[in-house]
Amino acid sequence: MGGDFGPRCIIPAVARCLQQIPGFNVVLVGSPEPMASLSREYRLPDDRVSFVHTSETILADDLPASVLRSKRDASMRVVIEQVRDGVADGCLSAGNTGALMVLAKTLLGTVEGIQRPAIMAALPVAGKFCHVLDLGANVDCSARQLFEFAVMGSEAVAELTDIERPRVGLLNIGSEINKGSLRVREVSELLRDSRSLNYVGHIEGHELFQDRADVVVCDGFVGNVVLKASEGLAGYMQDELRRALAGSFALRLMAPLLRRALKPMGERLDPNRHNGAVLLGLQGVVVKSHGNADQQALEVAIGQAVRACQSQMPQRIAARLARCRGELL
Amino acid sequence: MGGDFGPRCIIPAVARCLQQIPGFNVVLVGSPEPMASLSREYRLPDDRVSFVHTSETILADDLPASVLRSKRDASMRVVIEQVRDGVADGCLSAGNTGALMVLAKTLLGTVEGIQRPAIMAALPVAGKFCHVLDLGANVDCSARQLFEFAVMGSEAVAELTDIERPRVGLLNIGSEINKGSLRVREVSELLRDSRSLNYVGHIEGHELFQDRADVVVCDGFVGNVVLKASEGLAGYMQDELRRALAGSFALRLMAPLLRRALKPMGERLDPNRHNGAVLLGLQGVVVKSHGNADQQALEVAIGQAVRACQSQMPQRIAARLARCRGELL
Repeated sequence: MGGDFGPRCIIPAVARCLQQIPGFNVVLVGSPEPMASLSREYRLPDDRVSFVHTSETILADDLPASVLRSKRDASMRVVIEQVRDGVADGCLSAGNTGALMVLAKTLLGTVEGIQRPAIMAALPVAGKFCHVLDLGANVDCSARQLFEFAVMGSEAVAELTDIERPRVGLLNIGSEINKGSLRVREVSELLRDSRSLNYVGHIEGHELFQDRADVVVCDGFVGNVVLKASEGLAGYMQDELRRALAGSFALRLMAPLLRRALKPMGERLDPNRHNGAVLLGLQGVVVKSHGNADQQALEVAIGQAVRACQSQMPQRIAARLARCRGELL
Repeated sequence: MGGDFGPRCIIPAVARCLQQIPGFNVVLVGSPEPMASLSREYRLPDDRVSFVHTSETILADDLPASVLRSKRDASMRVVIEQVRDGVADGCLSAGNTGALMVLAKTLLGTVEGIQRPAIMAALPVAGKFCHVLDLGANVDCSARQLFEFAVMGSEAVAELTDIERPRVGLLNIGSEINKGSLRVREVSELLRDSRSLNYVGHIEGHELFQDRADVVVCDGFVGNVVLKASEGLAGYMQDELRRALAGSFALRLMAPLLRRALKPMGERLDPNRHNGAVLLGLQGVVVKSHGNADQQALEVAIGQAVRACQSQMPQRIAARLARCRGELL
């Protein structure tokens, strides 16, 4: 049980979700204390909660490779083992992304034809979403892996939304085919040649917010930086907006009206409301929460994990991937 | 004479700058028409304007390497030759960034100790700026080149602002030292060992907007995507804001007041007001404008070029770099 705020934030989020989500049962994995006392404090119902006690913790600076060999009793490892062993239908973690990726890949395995799982999240665009992957699970990606992300992203978005043939774009620094790094030019060619994908070409940074594509592929370094920069800028602009509106007496009088008018925009851009990214391509449901998620954000992520389990997302994506396996192998 | 809008946009911008900047003279390089007729239309003064006619154009999809060998009469090449030959003090181009970089590097040469020039731009942060480089001139960078960007960025910001020892950060996907791609981890070590730089560690995407560093280093692919994504998101949020405020009758009545309150924020975030990025590390002033710059944005870029010439920026940066040459070689 990790993340920046630990059980003090997770237990109340679990308590709320137990009240709100019928049929939701939970296995809490972590050190006995403060898990047990907090569970009593928030009156978690005995019949829907079980505990697995662990003695080790994976830290933010633990190397993914070393995590595999050591720390066999870390909560992040044990929670994935619960999924592997069929005790849990899926799991949620707010810990070290690289370690989560490696442990999940090793313990659960990937879907046939997929080398590495990827993390996808959605940027809000004009009432819709632009899904971006990978977001940090894979820092150095080969062209082949980027191509797999495109296939997984396309299938996942087709599964999650009512878009039948999602528009797939490649994040790049220009629209011309000779633009980009060596690797990006290589995958650009693979994507152009694909018959199963609805490939729409290169997407530049600003086009992420112009509804040019439903799925945008990039390596985990670029994806992580762009997602966090977008969150940072949205937060900065909202602070500036508040300051600007507080600067005039007349506008301060209008504050309730302004708050009501601006609330939907704030909610659309609030990263906490989009918390919980599914690791795509795994044989099992693993959901990654922001490390600094607060209680509300954790509730959203738990909801995502429950939905992914209920819809049997890994099986559905695997079935879809099987149909375009010819292109993957 | 290039960019998306060509002479129809450039000539009026030049006309305004000739009115506003005393001592500014201009060499216009491009095809004879419509340059000549537009110059008459906008009454450019004969004694402050000269023309160099060229017959070729570098296109957005021309490969930088092939541009070097062919297209010897392209306006982008000839304008840099004007600087090399001392006819002009500096030049401005809105064309293909990669081609501009290669031509400038080859024709003007770099400052001693610098392998490749870099493009730097400023993101607005809390009334200050966060300077980011590279922004697209160098897509595949070695650790050594990223280190040079840090030194150039630090020296340029010290020269451009009143910050004596700018805080230098490395764009990365986590604060821990083992985070990032192989290349990023390598340069992270070089930066930590540097004695001349005021290195403050890794900067995550959201921290670009939290005044954590004055200079942030990244490769040109990441920098270009982040800068354009930020511009795209800022534009999207401003559209959303307008829509939200137009949705209520009472707020529509307050429109003039709201416009006045929000104007400074809009101006701070308007990419047109920050147009014109100096190529750092060259033995000469070369300024890159956005390809899609409008007239107002081109005026800003011309102003940047004039200031860089007046302050003898290349010479000053070279002198500063000489002082920390020990670390560069």
